[in-house]
Amino acid sequence: MMTSSNAPYRGIFPVAPTIFDERGAIDMPCQLRCIDFMIDCGIDGLCILANFSEQFVLSDEERALLTRAILEHVAGRVPVIVTTTHCSSRLCAERSRAAQAMGAAMVMVMPPYHGATIRLSEAAIFDFFRAVSDAIDIPVMVQDAPVSGTLLSVELLARMAREIEQVRYFKIEVPQAAAKLRRLIATGGEAIEGPWDGEEAITLLADLEAGATGSVTGGAYADLVGPILRAWQAGDRAAAVAGYERCLPLINYENRQCGLLAAKSLMQEGGIIACETPRHPLVPLDPATRLGLIETARRLDPLVLRWGR
Amino acid sequence: MMTSSNAPYRGIFPVAPTIFDERGAIDMPCQLRCIDFMIDCGIDGLCILANFSEQFVLSDEERALLTRAILEHVAGRVPVIVTTTHCSSRLCAERSRAAQAMGAAMVMVMPPYHGATIRLSEAAIFDFFRAVSDAIDIPVMVQDAPVSGTLLSVELLARMAREIEQVRYFKIEVPQAAAKLRRLIATGGEAIEGPWDGEEAITLLADLEAGATGSVTGGAYADLVGPILRAWQAGDRAAAVAGYERCLPLINYENRQCGLLAAKSLMQEGGIIACETPRHPLVPLDPATRLGLIETARRLDPLVLRWGR
Repeated sequence: MMTSSNAPYRGIFPVAPTIFDERGAIDMPCQLRCIDFMIDCGIDGLCILANFSEQFVLSDEERALLTRAILEHVAGRVPVIVTTTHCSSRLCAERSRAAQAMGAAMVMVMPPYHGATIRLSEAAIFDFFRAVSDAIDIPVMVQDAPVSGTLLSVELLARMAREIEQVRYFKIEVPQAAAKLRRLIATGGEAIEGPWDGEEAITLLADLEAGATGSVTGGAYADLVGPILRAWQAGDRAAAVAGYERCLPLINYENRQCGLLAAKSLMQEGGIIACETPRHPLVPLDPATRLGLIETARRLDPLVLRWGR
Repeated sequence: MMTSSNAPYRGIFPVAPTIFDERGAIDMPCQLRCIDFMIDCGIDGLCILANFSEQFVLSDEERALLTRAILEHVAGRVPVIVTTTHCSSRLCAERSRAAQAMGAAMVMVMPPYHGATIRLSEAAIFDFFRAVSDAIDIPVMVQDAPVSGTLLSVELLARMAREIEQVRYFKIEVPQAAAKLRRLIATGGEAIEGPWDGEEAITLLADLEAGATGSVTGGAYADLVGPILRAWQAGDRAAAVAGYERCLPLINYENRQCGLLAAKSLMQEGGIIACETPRHPLVPLDPATRLGLIETARRLDPLVLRWGR
C-alpha cells in the first residue's frame, strides 16, 4: 500500500480505461494487461475509474471489483489514484474509505452534482469535501472539470486546501487552466501540495509554466508525454517545449476528435486489448476518425502500437 | 404483482420521498409509514426512486433494498412505478428486470446522460430504450425532464412509442409541457398509451386540456390533487378547474420554493416521519421557507397534517 510518505506525488498519472468485451461485460484479463502496458510506459502513477474510464456507466459493484483487482495487480509498482466521486457525501466518503483500505494512494473526487440541473452551494461543497477528508488518511484530489457543471472558485479551492486536511491536490481542467493554476498557487500557497492538470495534456506546457507539478492524461501514450514532464522537472525547458510540440498533433487528435475512445482504440490496434468498444449507449469511434487517430499516432511510434505485438 | 392487464394506467401517481434519519441512513419504518399515508390519500399508484426521491444520492444496493421493501409493503394495494434510470443501457436493463421481478407495474427511465456535458445521439437514445424494453414485459415511462439535459424531440418519442414494444408512457415535464403533450398525442396516436405530466402538477390543468391521462406529483397531498384528475376524468371540467385553482398556491410553493424538500417537511410536520432532512450535501429547507410551506398547506387542510396525529 502506498502511504502519504510517498507524497508529494508528481509527474504523469494517466487514466486507465475500463476494458469491456463486445457484450459490455468487464474483460478483466485485458484490463490487467492494459495496466501492465501502462506501467511499462514509465508512468509515475495511474488513475482509475475516471470519466475517461467510463465511470458513469459502471455499477457500484463493478467499481469495487475493478478497484480491488487493479490495486492487487499493481501491487505497489506505482501509486494509484482511485476516483470515488458520488453525489452523496456519505457514499463518497464510504467509497473513499474502501479505496484506501484496498491500497489507493489518493482519491479523486468531483464536487457533488447531478445531471444538467442539480448543483450545490459553496457551503455544501465545502462540507462535502470535509466529510470525505474526515473518512480517510490519504490525499484527496479535487477534480475541477466541466462535466460537474460546477464553478469552483479559486478562493473556495484555496480555502479547502487550507482548512480540510486531505484536500491537497487539484486537477484543473477547465478553460484557461493555466491562469487558474497560477491563481490557485498564489492564493493557496503551500497548502496546494499538488497543482495538476488533466484533459489529455492538451494544455500541459502552459500548465507547467504556471506551476503544475502533475498531469492526469489519456492512458495510451505516456511513453511520449512522460518525458515532457521529466524534462521540465529536470529544468530542461527546451526539451519540454520540443517534446510537447512533437506530441501535440496526437494529443490534439485525442482531445478534439476521440475523447475517451482514443486510448482503447490505440490499445486494440496495438494488440493490448481484445475490444475497444465502449459500454453502450456510448458508441465506438467513427471508422474514418479511428484511421486518423492511428495514423497520427503511428508517426510518433508510440509503445502502444508495439507493446502487444 | 401488477401486470399489464391493469394497463392503461391513469390518474395520480405521486413520488414517494426517500426517508433518512439524521445521520443520513435510510429510515425504513418511517419510509413504510410514508407509503401507507400516501395510499390513504387515495392515489392511483405511486412512483419510487425518482429525482424527488433523491435517487441520485443512493447507492445501487440502497435502490434495490428500497424497491424490495416498498413493493413487499405495498403488496399490490396500488401499482408502483420504479425509476431505474442509469446511464448504461446494460445496467438500466438489469435494474428494470430486477424491478419487474420484485413486482413493479412500470419502470420510469430518463434518457442516458451524465453531468453537465455527457449527452447521447438520438440513435443511441433509441437503442438504449430498446435495450431496456427488450429486458422486460412491463411498460416503460420515458421521463422527459430538464435534469437529463437532453432534448427529446416529439418525433423521436413518437417513433420510440411505435417501434419499441414497452415504451408506452411519457412523463413530459419540460417547459410548455402541454404543447409538447398535444403534439406527442397527435404524432404518436394510439402508441402513446400514457401521455402524462409531472413537476408537482404545476402545469396539470393545461396538461389535462392537452390530453394528459396521468400525473406524477409530489408525495404529500394527493388527497388534494387526486380529485382534480378524477373530476376531469368524470367530465366535470368546472370542478377540475376549481380544484386546480384552489390547490395552486400550495403546488406553486412546492414547485418554486421547496422542490424535493416539500413532501418530507409536510410529512414531518404532520408526524408521519421522524426526520425530513435530505441526504447531505442536500440541505434542509430554510426555516422561513418551511414556515411558508406549512402555512400555505394548512389553509387547504391536507391529510398530511392530520394523518399522523
